[in-house]
Amino acid sequence: MKEYADSDGSYGHVSTQFADFEGIVLESGVFLGPLRVAYETYGTLSPGKDNAVLILHALSGDAHAAGLDADGRAGWWDAMIGPGKGIDTDKYFVISSNCLGGCKGTTGPPSICEATGKPYGRSFPLITIGDMVNVQAMLVKELGIEKLHNVIGGSMGGMQALEWAVRHPDMVRSAVVIAATGRLSPQGIAFNWVGRNAIYCDPASACNDSSPGYDYQRVGKGLAVARMIGHITYLSEETMEAKFGRKLRLKDMNGYSYSLGENGKEDGEFEVESYLQHQGSSFMRRFDEDSYIMITKAIDYFDLAGPDGDLTPVFRNIEAKMLVLSFSSDWLYPTSMSLAIVRALQAEKKHVSFVELDLPYGHDSFLVNAGIPMLTRIIRGFLEGV
Amino acid sequence: MKEYADSDGSYGHVSTQFADFEGIVLESGVFLGPLRVAYETYGTLSPGKDNAVLILHALSGDAHAAGLDADGRAGWWDAMIGPGKGIDTDKYFVISSNCLGGCKGTTGPPSICEATGKPYGRSFPLITIGDMVNVQAMLVKELGIEKLHNVIGGSMGGMQALEWAVRHPDMVRSAVVIAATGRLSPQGIAFNWVGRNAIYCDPASACNDSSPGYDYQRVGKGLAVARMIGHITYLSEETMEAKFGRKLRLKDMNGYSYSLGENGKEDGEFEVESYLQHQGSSFMRRFDEDSYIMITKAIDYFDLAGPDGDLTPVFRNIEAKMLVLSFSSDWLYPTSMSLAIVRALQAEKKHVSFVELDLPYGHDSFLVNAGIPMLTRIIRGFLEGV
Repeated sequence: MKEYADSDGSYGHVSTQFADFEGIVLESGVFLGPLRVAYETYGTLSPGKDNAVLILHALSGDAHAAGLDADGRAGWWDAMIGPGKGIDTDKYFVISSNCLGGCKGTTGPPSICEATGKPYGRSFPLITIGDMVNVQAMLVKELGIEKLHNVIGGSMGGMQALEWAVRHPDMVRSAVVIAATGRLSPQGIAFNWVGRNAIYCDPASACNDSSPGYDYQRVGKGLAVARMIGHITYLSEETMEAKFGRKLRLKDMNGYSYSLGENGKEDGEFEVESYLQHQGSSFMRRFDEDSYIMITKAIDYFDLAGPDGDLTPVFRNIEAKMLVLSFSSDWLYPTSMSLAIVRALQAEKKHVSFVELDLPYGHDSFLVNAGIPMLTRIIRGFLEGV
Repeated sequence: MKEYADSDGSYGHVSTQFADFEGIVLESGVFLGPLRVAYETYGTLSPGKDNAVLILHALSGDAHAAGLDADGRAGWWDAMIGPGKGIDTDKYFVISSNCLGGCKGTTGPPSICEATGKPYGRSFPLITIGDMVNVQAMLVKELGIEKLHNVIGGSMGGMQALEWAVRHPDMVRSAVVIAATGRLSPQGIAFNWVGRNAIYCDPASACNDSSPGYDYQRVGKGLAVARMIGHITYLSEETMEAKFGRKLRLKDMNGYSYSLGENGKEDGEFEVESYLQHQGSSFMRRFDEDSYIMITKAIDYFDLAGPDGDLTPVFRNIEAKMLVLSFSSDWLYPTSMSLAIVRALQAEKKHVSFVELDLPYGHDSFLVNAGIPMLTRIIRGFLEGV
């Protein structure tokens, strides 16, 4: 298989910007303020302000979706966003913001709480996917845009795309919901729960200094464990078999290097272990454990239909044209979950298209280089047809 | 769904016994000694010593497979083993031992190392599934038995059943391999790796006192996290949906109880979280984290075919009649893994039967009450037909 998208950063250099608000009343009724939103834009807003596309990131994403940041790093969906790409910055004004509760510039657990003068940490209030969307709506209005041409996102971003279509029907012309669900399965809840418990096992003992523009981060080794659990669920068994199999990092099958002293810890010996170790470690450098806790709770709580499980009445007021995409190898958010969304939209006679993409890379297929051409073709066509 | 097997303990009270040996040369070449094996027996050995059935436990099992212990607790497979049950103690002399590296009486990390006078802990040598089987063979010979009527086990016990048939062809008349594999998938390796890393995050800070007959246990909260990860993989998504869904433990969907203080930790709020929390906590009371590390490493290393992946030559010398069972809902050790074993046995023209049981309870189906009648019918018939 191909690696995660190599990105060419063809949009060029971008800077993260910030919008400040007095605050927001959360779904729980709690007032959170002041509120800052980190965002980036790519492309030019048309005179009619009718070409805006809002990008919605997944759990670990941030505002930097495309182009190159000050350190020359390409955005997380640079392969999809740029001149001539699937989301064409020559045509569209693309907005990408860090979600509420994040740790990349938008108000979240690492932010300083005015009342205490200290970071919120775990005293950050409960947030929901709906709160994230309401904050995005404030940003969109702040940018002078009344109606978005499109909202698009995968995984948690797909949940947000659904919330957008439901909560702000008059503000969304179309929505692309990728590898998402109307509500997380108990299995998904269980994996998130175990990840958070790993964090509680080894909470941060100290705070990192802040990078410029960002707040501090709290990071214990448990965060790496949580990330590794996540990564297993994002990959398909097929991809793991093809990419790693049972290959050892250093030795042949007859020369296991394993040994532990009394207090020893092991190094990843199988390639799959080493890969996960790397993913966990690099995540620790860029994420905050309390943001991880708050965002996974928001994902767990997400349940568009509520207890009775019927999505149909929830979708009644949707005006947007909907495109729902799933991946054949996604076992975390399987195609059956996308189909539940599609059927409820059809029952309400909404304009909905559905494609199951036959890609072997699991839940993360929308981020994998090899999947980008297929996604590009479908999403470009949909955006043009709206 | 039904709960894990309610057991009636109909075999009556049993005591764990111990067999002591000078030691064993492990596959790694290291000598481990002295060596103690904890075991139980049920039923009576026939005069011809030809009715012995060896029970092989999974990762978290122990020697107490049937009947009632001193505290009145039924064995882990009591629903299968007893008078008139699937493995009928009126007909068979049933032996069950704690595996090498365990923490329930057989030499393992909690045992005192003679050289240091202290528990081995993580300095316990690397062990393999083959080593476990070799220790079992020493016990069987010690009991005066030259040939076992049958060896039977699920999950790691199934790996041992395969090793038995391969390593000791002259000692095994038949073998039942349940929900097992010739080698663990990279996904399985990955889950074990993450579980061990959770343990490394919060290692035991102190040792528990020993229970009578057992050695001390080292237990940090990471062990509970590791166990919770395991539990998710042992259950099917279907079972989780049926058993828990998105039900909350205390409140309705509009009344989430979630809140965390600065150093707060959350309690399980969804039923699936609460269930896992309970499983993790009870595991901490009965298991040792270093045993967990050593045994999962042995499972990871298990690879009967070796690097070239061809099981056929490995199976050439097998004499036992083989029964391979898989569960339709087992995504950790799926039917395809059992079929790989079956095909290689067929290629060598061995006597092999295969059944995929259509049970919805995932990998753990062989331990679930509702699956016992089906297992009983199949296994009783197989044991009688040998």
